[in-house]
Amino acid sequence: MIRVGILGATGYTALELIKLLLRHPEVRITALTSRQTDRPHVSAVHPQLFGRLDLHLENFTPVEVAERCDCVFSCLPHAASAELVMQFAGTPCRVIDFSADYRLDDVATYRAWYAAEHPDPSRVGQVPYGLPELFGQRLREANLVANPGCNPTAPILALAPLLQLGLIEPDGILVDAKCGVSGAGRTPKLTTHFPECNESVVPYNVGRHRHTPEFNQILRRFSGAAARVIFTPHLVPMDRGILTTTYARPRGNLGEQQALDALRQFYGDKPFVRIVDHLPATKDTQGTNFCDLTARRVDDWLLLIGSIDNLIKGASGAAVQNLNWMYGFPETTALV
Amino acid sequence: MIRVGILGATGYTALELIKLLLRHPEVRITALTSRQTDRPHVSAVHPQLFGRLDLHLENFTPVEVAERCDCVFSCLPHAASAELVMQFAGTPCRVIDFSADYRLDDVATYRAWYAAEHPDPSRVGQVPYGLPELFGQRLREANLVANPGCNPTAPILALAPLLQLGLIEPDGILVDAKCGVSGAGRTPKLTTHFPECNESVVPYNVGRHRHTPEFNQILRRFSGAAARVIFTPHLVPMDRGILTTTYARPRGNLGEQQALDALRQFYGDKPFVRIVDHLPATKDTQGTNFCDLTARRVDDWLLLIGSIDNLIKGASGAAVQNLNWMYGFPETTALV
Amino acid sequence: MIRVGILGATGYTALELIKLLLRHPEVRITALTSRQTDRPHVSAVHPQLFGRLDLHLENFTPVEVAERCDCVFSCLPHAASAELVMQFAGTPCRVIDFSADYRLDDVATYRAWYAAEHPDPSRVGQVPYGLPELFGQRLREANLVANPGCNPTAPILALAPLLQLGLIEPDGILVDAKCGVSGAGRTPKLTTHFPECNESVVPYNVGRHRHTPEFNQILRRFSGAAARVIFTPHLVPMDRGILTTTYARPRGNLGEQQALDALRQFYGDKPFVRIVDHLPATKDTQGTNFCDLTARRVDDWLLLIGSIDNLIKGASGAAVQNLNWMYGFPETTALV
Amino acid sequence: MIRVGILGATGYTALELIKLLLRHPEVRITALTSRQTDRPHVSAVHPQLFGRLDLHLENFTPVEVAERCDCVFSCLPHAASAELVMQFAGTPCRVIDFSADYRLDDVATYRAWYAAEHPDPSRVGQVPYGLPELFGQRLREANLVANPGCNPTAPILALAPLLQLGLIEPDGILVDAKCGVSGAGRTPKLTTHFPECNESVVPYNVGRHRHTPEFNQILRRFSGAAARVIFTPHLVPMDRGILTTTYARPRGNLGEQQALDALRQFYGDKPFVRIVDHLPATKDTQGTNFCDLTARRVDDWLLLIGSIDNLIKGASGAAVQNLNWMYGFPETTALV
Repeated sequence: MIRVGILGATGYTALELIKLLLRHPEVRITALTSRQTDRPHVSAVHPQLFGRLDLHLENFTPVEVAERCDCVFSCLPHAASAELVMQFAGTPCRVIDFSADYRLDDVATYRAWYAAEHPDPSRVGQVPYGLPELFGQRLREANLVANPGCNPTAPILALAPLLQLGLIEPDGILVDAKCGVSGAGRTPKLTTHFPECNESVVPYNVGRHRHTPEFNQILRRFSGAAARVIFTPHLVPMDRGILTTTYARPRGNLGEQQALDALRQFYGDKPFVRIVDHLPATKDTQGTNFCDLTARRVDDWLLLIGSIDNLIKGASGAAVQNLNWMYGFPETTALV
Repeated sequence: MIRVGILGATGYTALELIKLLLRHPEVRITALTSRQTDRPHVSAVHPQLFGRLDLHLENFTPVEVAERCDCVFSCLPHAASAELVMQFAGTPCRVIDFSADYRLDDVATYRAWYAAEHPDPSRVGQVPYGLPELFGQRLREANLVANPGCNPTAPILALAPLLQLGLIEPDGILVDAKCGVSGAGRTPKLTTHFPECNESVVPYNVGRHRHTPEFNQILRRFSGAAARVIFTPHLVPMDRGILTTTYARPRGNLGEQQALDALRQFYGDKPFVRIVDHLPATKDTQGTNFCDLTARRVDDWLLLIGSIDNLIKGASGAAVQNLNWMYGFPETTALV
Repeated sequence: MIRVGILGATGYTALELIKLLLRHPEVRITALTSRQTDRPHVSAVHPQLFGRLDLHLENFTPVEVAERCDCVFSCLPHAASAELVMQFAGTPCRVIDFSADYRLDDVATYRAWYAAEHPDPSRVGQVPYGLPELFGQRLREANLVANPGCNPTAPILALAPLLQLGLIEPDGILVDAKCGVSGAGRTPKLTTHFPECNESVVPYNVGRHRHTPEFNQILRRFSGAAARVIFTPHLVPMDRGILTTTYARPRGNLGEQQALDALRQFYGDKPFVRIVDHLPATKDTQGTNFCDLTARRVDDWLLLIGSIDNLIKGASGAAVQNLNWMYGFPETTALV
Repeated sequence: MIRVGILGATGYTALELIKLLLRHPEVRITALTSRQTDRPHVSAVHPQLFGRLDLHLENFTPVEVAERCDCVFSCLPHAASAELVMQFAGTPCRVIDFSADYRLDDVATYRAWYAAEHPDPSRVGQVPYGLPELFGQRLREANLVANPGCNPTAPILALAPLLQLGLIEPDGILVDAKCGVSGAGRTPKLTTHFPECNESVVPYNVGRHRHTPEFNQILRRFSGAAARVIFTPHLVPMDRGILTTTYARPRGNLGEQQALDALRQFYGDKPFVRIVDHLPATKDTQGTNFCDLTARRVDDWLLLIGSIDNLIKGASGAAVQNLNWMYGFPETTALV
């Protein structure tokens, strides 16, 4: 039985994570942290958990967490996350980090996109990217795993095999994403105030969303050449889900059937990637750890359409899947 | 041409008010105020108004507003509103107050429900209640009008005629309201954060909503005896609209047809109250100044069902209707 | 391992049922039926199930189903359900019926509310009502169980203990329900067409909803006298969830704390009824088999507020809970 | 006073059209048609219009309509529309057609995309395209105007000036659209059933949406060379609004400021096109006839982002704007 903790347990990814972990037969939740000093019961913060988990959110130090846990999930925002995560380095406690802090290959890129010095530069570029369908073997021995961003997950899963096979161009890829509002976190803001974002679609962070370098660095590993993605997210009035429409340039006469076949072959034995013929809806993956993908050839473009639940496959489900790999549990434990 | 101003122009009622006033041929908007000190252009606060109104939000004093305006709408919250509104008393500038400050009959009730001393006690109980279908004649000479609360509007319009005719009991009336989220204002809060209130219904302020005394005091004028309403509001995931289901005890054998006839006769010439046979939906009145009402007799209860747009007939439309009465413009000007 | 089947597998309750049953370690789904003659794969009807269940929807007769299954769930509409369910009477196959056909105590009531002769009159009044918190012991030996209606579930769970203890009056109970749209089924209609019901609240079937006699007959068993409920449902723009606001008359000085204590004592060991102090939201129970209940005393009324997921505790979760009781599995199997 | 009629008055575009026309001081609605034979009152079909328009929907022939009207709007679907519209050719009654029937330049394109022979081939290619910002002068004498499709409106308004100035490439343009559900019409279907499309985003008609040739034919007039658009629409859970994200290839060093300046200059005096610096939301144009546009340069792409209300600027508002041009009324009459 693995004892697990969650740093920053007040948000949506923490709530989903707890719900998944409560179903996990090999795991027991032993610590939840928050900077709140009144030690609220978890059900006061998350009424959905009333009667299901009897823990308080504590203002624990990393040392205190490491004493109570074998593995910890950090649901903290970037920078704040690394500052705590680095303190687990000398402990036996393994870490799965939801933030962007350990996803990038180099501190220069981090500095350029996050306008800050990285708190823990020596490990940047050393941490496996927690997309088990692509990097599962690297997770087995990892003490620290960088959980992927919600937006890159589906496009990377669609693009990586085709880039590896040289079927599409690595440059000039457009990713147009339609994102549920929970992706913006749980802190109230005007842009996510119900009467502002309900009945509305709006693009945000056009040309400067911080998931952009994550796309490029991961895809480069498959293309063998610089990859360049233009990423354009849009806020859509729904709780959860991301629909990504990816426009790539096929090489040669790549047809949609050939693209689908390549994806099916690549993911043949992977339980959470479903290559479908129909156009996927976000509702098809809502509340699940699945990533549904399809392809369409339209004129001289290949469209790759992906659907995930941003809080599950895009965050907490992926984290549990990573935990399963790290500890050798069956990959689907607690996830189906 | 009447020059009008709006105090507290950053919220939703102010936005709707501006949109209505831009259609009013007898009115020109000459001042918008806000405590913001950076004097934002109105279109920076309300992008819907881009290119439609060229004014900045100014941190004007009441004296400065009174110089620029013949009539002012206060969209400020209670207490804050009276503190400014009272400063217009010595000026020729007439005021329509959206807050609850001048709706109640006595300061004791105000103190009991708002837990504060009234800033302007001498005028409490002297100010006409701005529901023109019931009190239109009192508005003609008024220098100050108390715009009604959004929740009481439809139930009072349904109950007042029946109480006046002695057709229902004034005691033991239940009002169960289903309210769109814009009624909670524009300040971001956790309860109105999209992923919290979307896909959810929740009651709030049960047994202690501040519209309760407003119900009772207005209805008492029609029943000739103490009226008592239990008011239970619920937050519903939609931008606008209030559906009120009012349960009253009929006297004698009052049938639903008799109730409908009484309402039709009472409101025969009123342009904004529609007595309908079908069950009204909030969508039927969305974006309009109409109040749709119907009645159903079920066993020994009379159900009165009402639909309004909380921002129009429940706030800004009612305010323009009041202005039309105050200045002798046709009642429907700018409202159809 | 129990072999189970689903009659009428194209709708939302069937989909939720399948998702729950796929998690049940003691159950295997062996038959899905539909009147569709093209034998669609279940994932063509329910894309969420792609890759998760490899069955076709078959136009099986009851005899064919009984050969393949130990227990069958009927998700068919009333009348159509009883016509098939009665054909399982001579087989070893046990039945859990989602329709209203076997919920009522007598055929006269059925005839009055459904305007039809009951297809299987001899069993009417003999079938246990599948609310295990109240009637669990009766389910153990049952060959046929009547799954409760979604709307009565929470109010009955709130009212039954208080009626049994004589704490409230059995007459003059008002139930005002706010219901998600999935409760209306999966057949497209104008009233559930997105642009009609989105951004709108509307009451329906006022005074004549068919769940009314179900309320009265079940509550009578606890009150020891005729119970009478006025049931008023409203369609609310969300996928799932029912928030019920029940207004009852307390006897004597019943306070809300006393009511909450009585409920807590009654449901002390029941895993799916949560008596909470806060006002429950439908989101608190979304996707779960929980029923959250609280009480508020307001003047001379006791308000009982309940939240369930209409497709889980209001339908498919309750059915799995019933199956667990019928076969002696732990009550929470597949449900937490 | 112009007498106007509406063919096919049961749908959403007809409802919006009626609401706009009721505000038009130069217009009187004299005929509404429908194939329904029970002559329903317009308020039975559209409860929003209760008390606002006293007309029945009649099963009139074109001849009967032409006797009652000076101008008629056809809200019928393609093919059905042309079959009636062609019968007005010999009458003095002018026609504004909402369908696609008269938008395309040639019957071959119509045949290819609509898989049918055009009912009125001789006028195909002769009818002005009713986007007054681009083709206003051609509308003055027109007896028949083709109202634009909702999806092409904003992208064409953004692209046309830049193509005309040679600032972008006419080929390889991607239009990714996010569309409210009212765009799918009022006929209930599974795809627009609330619990299917709520809380979900899904692409549709990828690579084969019938607005595609409309894009290409109109843009060609500005580019002076073949234009080619890949159009990918997505259904988004909101009533109304279209957000279009258009990806075009800039020529030379075209910066976003230069693009914005070009658009501002082109539309300087046009009341309904607003070139904004911020990223527009569909809510900014909800319920209005405005089209909000902005531009962003991202790497070697120019993004053009547009927001309209699909039922107003994308349909009924555009139609009234066309009527204003056809009859010489001020362009904004009934539209602000």
